[in-house]
Amino acid sequence: MAKVKMGPGYNIYPMPALLVGANVDGKPNFLTVAWGNIANAEPPMASVAIRASRHTRIGIEQNKTFSVNVPSTNLVKEVDYCGVASGSKVDKVKTCQFTVFYGKLGTAPLIEQCPVNLECSVQHSLELGSHTLYIGRIEEVHASSDCLIEGKLDLGKVKPLVFLAEPSRQYYAMGELQGKAYKIGLELKEKE
Amino acid sequence: MAKVKMGPGYNIYPMPALLVGANVDGKPNFLTVAWGNIANAEPPMASVAIRASRHTRIGIEQNKTFSVNVPSTNLVKEVDYCGVASGSKVDKVKTCQFTVFYGKLGTAPLIEQCPVNLECSVQHSLELGSHTLYIGRIEEVHASSDCLIEGKLDLGKVKPLVFLAEPSRQYYAMGELQGKAYKIGLELKEKE
Repeated sequence: MAKVKMGPGYNIYPMPALLVGANVDGKPNFLTVAWGNIANAEPPMASVAIRASRHTRIGIEQNKTFSVNVPSTNLVKEVDYCGVASGSKVDKVKTCQFTVFYGKLGTAPLIEQCPVNLECSVQHSLELGSHTLYIGRIEEVHASSDCLIEGKLDLGKVKPLVFLAEPSRQYYAMGELQGKAYKIGLELKEKE
Repeated sequence: MAKVKMGPGYNIYPMPALLVGANVDGKPNFLTVAWGNIANAEPPMASVAIRASRHTRIGIEQNKTFSVNVPSTNLVKEVDYCGVASGSKVDKVKTCQFTVFYGKLGTAPLIEQCPVNLECSVQHSLELGSHTLYIGRIEEVHASSDCLIEGKLDLGKVKPLVFLAEPSRQYYAMGELQGKAYKIGLELKEKE
């Protein structure tokens, strides 16, 4: 198979489409972030990369807390809007008609309409160039009760957005099941 | 909508299913990593979280380089296997029948069967507890020529794996298109 050199780029697939929240001067603001993930298991931590110019960054620096809200596919317009608009000019909470609540940290705004909400306290921040990588300890996770089955999150109900970045920049739903992790790979054990 | 406290967890959706590569004592080894993403735009950087006990980590420390290989759905068994098996005991490259090649860094092994391959040089490493978060500058991206249309990656050909972690731990394909980024959200501008 022939390979072609593409030059350095952002070619990791897929990415989540997360709404990262912070209180800026006491007012909740949310930013769409595709460059986030879990960073550590014990204790649970999450990382989010945020461009220096973004309004939400001011709030993270003020409170040393942030939220990560996982949206469902039905929020695709709101998700995209929060990446295009700036909280320095408009009230995104009002435009998107988000209902905001707070958890144990008190300063990390959470979106009720998102089925999963993480409250994070900043443990590290790394200035990498254009972006600051914030690493936050996940202090609490909130889930919408209608996305739970027997107390566990059901991902068919969460319906997370899948973001595919360069070059097409499109949002997708999750598709067909390909296999169960820690199980389907065991079939290769006999080839060892 | 009622919310339920779930306690701290790893509830970011979706995650990629990446094969992170390193040469351990000169021999290529690959590890499945769901906790990775882009970390910076200028210059392009990627982050991967790797548990301290993993064999691949030795190679990253030896060479200060690693690769990120993006698999297609047809590699789901190999991807899962590389997360279950350990390179300290078996030759994963042989079991998975991967064809390995090297790029400009020389020490970051790349998998020909994966449609997208990133070569990274370690810029930062953070010990967060159970995991080390490696942040690497993306020095080059290689793409399989049969996944390109007019020189650009076509994600319908790449067919990336989508990993949904807690609690179901399953691999999915990408599903239906939900909208174009930086466009579908503009419909909300009129509600500002």
